[in-house]
Amino acid sequence: MNIKGNAIIAQGGGPTAVINQSLAGAVIEMKKHKEITAIYGALHGVRGIIEENFLDLTNATQEHLEEVAQTPCAALLSTRDKPDQEYCEKIFQVFKKYNIRYFFYIGGNDSSDTVRLVNEYAQKEDYEFKAFHIPKTIDNDLVINDHTPGFGSAARFVAQAFMGVNLETKALDGIYIGIVMGRHAGFLTAASALGRRKEEDGPHLIYLPERSFNIDNFLQDVKSVYNKLGRCVIAVSEGIIDEDGAPIAAKLKTNVSRDSHGNIELAGGELGDMLTKIIKENLNIKRVRADTFGYLQRSFPGSISDTDQNEARLAGMAAVQFALMEEYQSGSVILDRVGEYEIHYTLTQLENIAAKTKHMPDEFINQEGNHITNAFIKYAEPLIGTDFKKIVSLNAPMVNKI
Amino acid sequence: MNIKGNAIIAQGGGPTAVINQSLAGAVIEMKKHKEITAIYGALHGVRGIIEENFLDLTNATQEHLEEVAQTPCAALLSTRDKPDQEYCEKIFQVFKKYNIRYFFYIGGNDSSDTVRLVNEYAQKEDYEFKAFHIPKTIDNDLVINDHTPGFGSAARFVAQAFMGVNLETKALDGIYIGIVMGRHAGFLTAASALGRRKEEDGPHLIYLPERSFNIDNFLQDVKSVYNKLGRCVIAVSEGIIDEDGAPIAAKLKTNVSRDSHGNIELAGGELGDMLTKIIKENLNIKRVRADTFGYLQRSFPGSISDTDQNEARLAGMAAVQFALMEEYQSGSVILDRVGEYEIHYTLTQLENIAAKTKHMPDEFINQEGNHITNAFIKYAEPLIGTDFKKIVSLNAPMVNKI
Repeated sequence: MNIKGNAIIAQGGGPTAVINQSLAGAVIEMKKHKEITAIYGALHGVRGIIEENFLDLTNATQEHLEEVAQTPCAALLSTRDKPDQEYCEKIFQVFKKYNIRYFFYIGGNDSSDTVRLVNEYAQKEDYEFKAFHIPKTIDNDLVINDHTPGFGSAARFVAQAFMGVNLETKALDGIYIGIVMGRHAGFLTAASALGRRKEEDGPHLIYLPERSFNIDNFLQDVKSVYNKLGRCVIAVSEGIIDEDGAPIAAKLKTNVSRDSHGNIELAGGELGDMLTKIIKENLNIKRVRADTFGYLQRSFPGSISDTDQNEARLAGMAAVQFALMEEYQSGSVILDRVGEYEIHYTLTQLENIAAKTKHMPDEFINQEGNHITNAFIKYAEPLIGTDFKKIVSLNAPMVNKI
Repeated sequence: MNIKGNAIIAQGGGPTAVINQSLAGAVIEMKKHKEITAIYGALHGVRGIIEENFLDLTNATQEHLEEVAQTPCAALLSTRDKPDQEYCEKIFQVFKKYNIRYFFYIGGNDSSDTVRLVNEYAQKEDYEFKAFHIPKTIDNDLVINDHTPGFGSAARFVAQAFMGVNLETKALDGIYIGIVMGRHAGFLTAASALGRRKEEDGPHLIYLPERSFNIDNFLQDVKSVYNKLGRCVIAVSEGIIDEDGAPIAAKLKTNVSRDSHGNIELAGGELGDMLTKIIKENLNIKRVRADTFGYLQRSFPGSISDTDQNEARLAGMAAVQFALMEEYQSGSVILDRVGEYEIHYTLTQLENIAAKTKHMPDEFINQEGNHITNAFIKYAEPLIGTDFKKIVSLNAPMVNKI
């Protein structure tokens, strides 16, 4: 017999375009099960738990949840809080008070660590309780998972952005640098290549945090492409590092600021502006432009992957289904690829996911460390959705000169 | 009886998401008229004319043109060249040699000036010839036109970008600045407000080049919004100026670079980074982030306004239809709004458009000069397309605290 009591769901960390699909999936699934008496949504993640700010979702209609699911960014609002033991004790006081027996937390690897800490506390206190992590991150850096909900839509945005700037530089020449999110993992930067159709299409160069970035090699690469094509489109991860593993972006800053998880804040246009300056000064090329894609990558509502939406929904539903099975007490939902492209939802222990980072495997990065391989394209192409725009160049014979 | 001969079409200036709709519209229309014997597409605008680099579009199929029309950025490639008298003479040598009797140039106000110069030369030489400008610019700054093809799609992108970052700051607090294109006209920056649904939705502040930007007032505005909502989303035009009319962005640069039209180059993230720094230092707020939207605004293929596509197509067709009427020898196609929302395509003399800039009218800007009015929303809303995403917040009762 399963535990009977109330359930709570919350969202943590940065937004994605499909995080509310997981929320809707979990809540719709919970409503089917009699063991769950009330469904609470904590506002601003774990912070909403200790502050006891809950929405009552028990009677939320499917129709309303479907509309919310289409909207990017945490509908329950989010937090960067990382609970320590004391924080966890506060969470439990609240859980006991409200008879919370099911805890679902949608988030990335920092959030899965939060679920692990909370769950460990419950076990120590012998509190009858189930805790599940629902994966979400545009960085695609959760271990074990084939990929994570949120990545497909962000990858779609980045790929389409580069399709556009590739056409722009083709029309007007010049060098273009796009700075893409992904502090430690290069998946999202690699996605810049997913809109390419021909060898001449950009991005012509891709720099990832998995390979050390050397300015001289970079200049040589750019020069080589520019001499050949008269233009060059470059995708650069915000997290590129030097040979000693130090972030290139942080080197530029006099005051390095860190977020509450200890991550260096890489915000702003400095990295792109510095690379622009280096190219202008060293290669004597006038038309050089850098854009930092920033928040748009993770929250743009105009172009969302339907595959990603569907998978985020199913991940949320799967977490609740696992929670209602007697054999599972806690865990993190895993997206597992089977065959050509089919996703199975399985479960792993929380400690297998918590605070671990997956990186781009070697087979996805070319020998020179300045582009991706076809293996990456094959891996990532199914994730960006079914109605992806294609580039069509004007195809007509040249007129003979008189 | 109309002139019989060959036609040439070209594209100039920056890209838009729908510039190839105008190309497709014009070519498909030309194919219907016997007076036009061959249809040439000059590569890289006027530069392709003097270099005699033409694609032969006479036999381009409608099916292929329809595919190209869906692709952003000049399919015929573009140029920033601004012809002087000598350049025009070269153009005419080529036109005579190839028996070009119809000239269509898709572009903004710089391009319309090119058409004007070329046409004046033709008249001086008594060359039987028709020259038409097809409007295109994301800046929406062509006079007489209600709006210009290309603006609707760029406005859609900017509006959706701000819908996303509004939700992001709602979920995680903080201050967000988005730097939007538009050197002299604020229309595209104003479009940031088109996704708002509630009073609390961002952007909460909008700064346009039509009003002088004062740092102290800016800080006061930001502080006031932040104190009220705990967050603040700000849209800033790249072209904001100080009280003496000097661009704020250019003030930051030691070496001001200019393009071939004499415009100051405002590229890069400096403006956003400077405003971020000013807020952090003066208001003691930690979480401040700026993104410069850059090229994505004018070339993103993932979210294009269907209304804009349709109008760009009809503007291209209209230019050819006017050219085939005996009473018109030259002109610029005008988008004229009739009634609630119907667009009529009319014609004006080239000199009425050439090198003139339309600005946001006073009725579109609020009294304080830090936001837009409902009159702007009413004006711009029909342009961004019919399937615009809407924000749906999670609506549920709060749980009573125990």
